[in-house]
Amino acid sequence: MKVEYINPFITATVNALETMAFIKPERKDPYMKEDGKATGDISGLIGLAGQTTGSVAISFPREMALKVVSNMVGEEMKEFNNEVRDGVGEIANMIAGGAKGELSEKGYHFKLSIPTVVIGSSHNISHRTDVPCIVVPFRMEDDTFTIEISLKMEKET
Amino acid sequence: MKVEYINPFITATVNALETMAFIKPERKDPYMKEDGKATGDISGLIGLAGQTTGSVAISFPREMALKVVSNMVGEEMKEFNNEVRDGVGEIANMIAGGAKGELSEKGYHFKLSIPTVVIGSSHNISHRTDVPCIVVPFRMEDDTFTIEISLKMEKET
Repeated sequence: MKVEYINPFITATVNALETMAFIKPERKDPYMKEDGKATGDISGLIGLAGQTTGSVAISFPREMALKVVSNMVGEEMKEFNNEVRDGVGEIANMIAGGAKGELSEKGYHFKLSIPTVVIGSSHNISHRTDVPCIVVPFRMEDDTFTIEISLKMEKET
Repeated sequence: MKVEYINPFITATVNALETMAFIKPERKDPYMKEDGKATGDISGLIGLAGQTTGSVAISFPREMALKVVSNMVGEEMKEFNNEVRDGVGEIANMIAGGAKGELSEKGYHFKLSIPTVVIGSSHNISHRTDVPCIVVPFRMEDDTFTIEISLKMEKET
């Protein structure tokens, strides 16, 4: 998977967190996901469907998710309630939506599904083994969250 | 959400398990998901994107997933390895793909994302709170698995 496919998702992630939660995450080095070891306590997932198909996931540790959504809604969140679920889903939506615009300009077209949110202590997400998946970790204060991008790129002919 | 939207997913679920894993699940009564309480140890998720958008998830308890994929591949699976992940993703794909054909005939069009698989002891899945979600439990031998369908139906005009 080329860097040009991944960068739009990275930019959109930073934008989403800066504009929605007033937090500036620091991107770390991306790596190929081969063993399904990136874990989180809450993840937002969204499917991409069209000539280009794939999925995007953002996974947060518990405390970070609560902090991000607290900032988004301007109220302290103490547990995984509906606001937190919808907030994490909305971030996934913004990441995929932001990347969609940029990739569309390069000729890669897809539509977005409705985001889904998974809650479970240290769950992990896997994507189809025959489709490459890139993990991008982001540092935010003292902890790390990850995005995972699994894409099968096909241009419209 | 009308029954006519849900039935294609139910039919496709039974077909997928019968043809792929030689198991005939028994459908129980569907219910509206309001509290995010359906849980599983492994789930296959797939996004639907187009005029109609949504997501479909199938969640299995651990032993049932191992049994289903063992039947699919003709070899005993003892842990959540790549075969099990791909198998559960493939079932999600077949359910959404089967329903897609039937719904398309009724004027509801969407494309499918690549399936994603979540592993985590007793995780739960939630969908956007402003989009209705139906849970359909299925009984199979002594245990239960569920499918969850969250759909925003819009016909092409």
